[in-house]
Amino acid sequence: MGEFDIIREIFAPLTSNAPGAFQLTDDAALLDVGLVVTKDIMVSGVHFLPKDPIDLVARKLLRVNLSDLAAKGAKPTGYILGCVWPANVKRHSIELFASGLREDQEKFRIALFGGDTAVHKLKTAPLTLSATVFGAPPKLGMTMRSGASHSDDLYVSGTIGDAGLGLAALKKEEKFTTVDKASLLGRFHLPQPRLSLGAALAGLATSAIDVSDGLIADAGHLARASNLRVEIDAVAIPRSPAAATWIASKSNRWRAIAKLASFGDDYEILFSAPSSMRRSIAVAAKASRTEVSRIGVMKRGEGVALLDEKGKEIAVPSGGFDHFKSA
Amino acid sequence: MGEFDIIREIFAPLTSNAPGAFQLTDDAALLDVGLVVTKDIMVSGVHFLPKDPIDLVARKLLRVNLSDLAAKGAKPTGYILGCVWPANVKRHSIELFASGLREDQEKFRIALFGGDTAVHKLKTAPLTLSATVFGAPPKLGMTMRSGASHSDDLYVSGTIGDAGLGLAALKKEEKFTTVDKASLLGRFHLPQPRLSLGAALAGLATSAIDVSDGLIADAGHLARASNLRVEIDAVAIPRSPAAATWIASKSNRWRAIAKLASFGDDYEILFSAPSSMRRSIAVAAKASRTEVSRIGVMKRGEGVALLDEKGKEIAVPSGGFDHFKSA
Repeated sequence: MGEFDIIREIFAPLTSNAPGAFQLTDDAALLDVGLVVTKDIMVSGVHFLPKDPIDLVARKLLRVNLSDLAAKGAKPTGYILGCVWPANVKRHSIELFASGLREDQEKFRIALFGGDTAVHKLKTAPLTLSATVFGAPPKLGMTMRSGASHSDDLYVSGTIGDAGLGLAALKKEEKFTTVDKASLLGRFHLPQPRLSLGAALAGLATSAIDVSDGLIADAGHLARASNLRVEIDAVAIPRSPAAATWIASKSNRWRAIAKLASFGDDYEILFSAPSSMRRSIAVAAKASRTEVSRIGVMKRGEGVALLDEKGKEIAVPSGGFDHFKSA
Repeated sequence: MGEFDIIREIFAPLTSNAPGAFQLTDDAALLDVGLVVTKDIMVSGVHFLPKDPIDLVARKLLRVNLSDLAAKGAKPTGYILGCVWPANVKRHSIELFASGLREDQEKFRIALFGGDTAVHKLKTAPLTLSATVFGAPPKLGMTMRSGASHSDDLYVSGTIGDAGLGLAALKKEEKFTTVDKASLLGRFHLPQPRLSLGAALAGLATSAIDVSDGLIADAGHLARASNLRVEIDAVAIPRSPAAATWIASKSNRWRAIAKLASFGDDYEILFSAPSSMRRSIAVAAKASRTEVSRIGVMKRGEGVALLDEKGKEIAVPSGGFDHFKSA
């Protein structure tokens, strides 16, 4: 039983065909008053490490939600917060958490509108957080997860796999230089929601999703939403200097790239656009000061293929990140 | 450190003076697109009992949120759901939970618009639920928690204390006849959000709040929001036949009434209106087929006084329900 099965089989029917719920297949809902709404939960031990600094956890909570709005081209305005604290929480921790929220509220110009807060009975029960973040849809209409056509280009912003390497560094599963480690930890703790790029892509991108489950898994979601297949050119996947060094240290280069593309928590925008739009995409990327890489193409068929430089398919770790399976 | 202090001192400043957040002093926020939004969390062991039937927990999750909208006069349209399941959750439990949601969605004509679901790492970590419920404000404007004037009447819908007695029955702290127990458990598991009454009160009530922390505590919130004092006539507090029997079984009648008025989970609407509106309030109550009782008056000053039939103040248990303190 996976998270996606649960959502599709048990919860999607509860949308009662409300059009703006998109059968729970998109990153966000569109309410008919003209509001894009998304929600992400973060649980200690599942989505973040118990020792992660709590002000950074607060900022990540906002940013993972802002990333969903970014992929839809929406302009965030505010959020509703839910917190359930361990039984022995100290006031200082809550204040530090709030200071993180304040910092990113100012950065992203959003405000807290309401919420609820409670305390677990048990000291061992984990800090559980949620944010429902909302914003205005782009004037040209919300960019949907579906809508790609056969032969559309596939693009991704930023670099891929850094947050996953950061997590591996935190868990002492991988070793890095001090400089690389700092940069990778930064990517894990403080993703950059691509709000400017997402807004610039409204009306240009035919489909978009934010990369949270891993590039390959989310490419699969994007393909499925348009009943298409995705082919990704492995060498075109953008990687940071730290990730490039890490790949070079591995005996099997393709396996290392496939692993990078299977980590979660990138919070980049993965999107499609017709090849006639290449110039416009470049302009949008430049205007929003965001690196964008063309990494593949949408094809007839289904599934995701990661291809080496000879066009041969590379084996990828199955699944991608699923909190139900990894829990 | 109480829940209300945390909200007022740490989280209220994060509203950055967004007008519709009302400094987190109301039951719901009002977004400028014209949407009333509220959020309530429910945690196993804190807000419900681990053995409570999970379909009823689902329905209560919706209803406690709908009750907030009811007090504001709003018409609910949909919700965003957050679930964090214990590590060993079975598919059957999730299906039963969803069947409860479906039943109440149909009853209250709302739809699921989105959400997030995750699983705890630990089997012992409690089921943690949240719903962000939204709806349309009444045409005459949202009924606020503030706005009462000196000498306004104070009213409450339904009967008070039944859910608390139901909880006491579940915990085997009190004994009831089979018939009374069934009725009290029903009030604990399935509160009735007073949506029709709330809608009818828009433009009539000068202030309103839903009774979730206990009549006395919520009367205190209502009074504070308008910088007034509330005086409640203890004998006027509406009670069910089961609650009346329970009071009669106690040696100290006033103490029993004060206890009833200190239980939480009533989900009735407590509201104020000028005495010139008495006929209109009666019409609104009748039109919405909801019992409404006039139980007190707003006065200059501060705090809440519960008065006996001679106008003498009755001692009340301090505080009211606070999840931070009770946790």
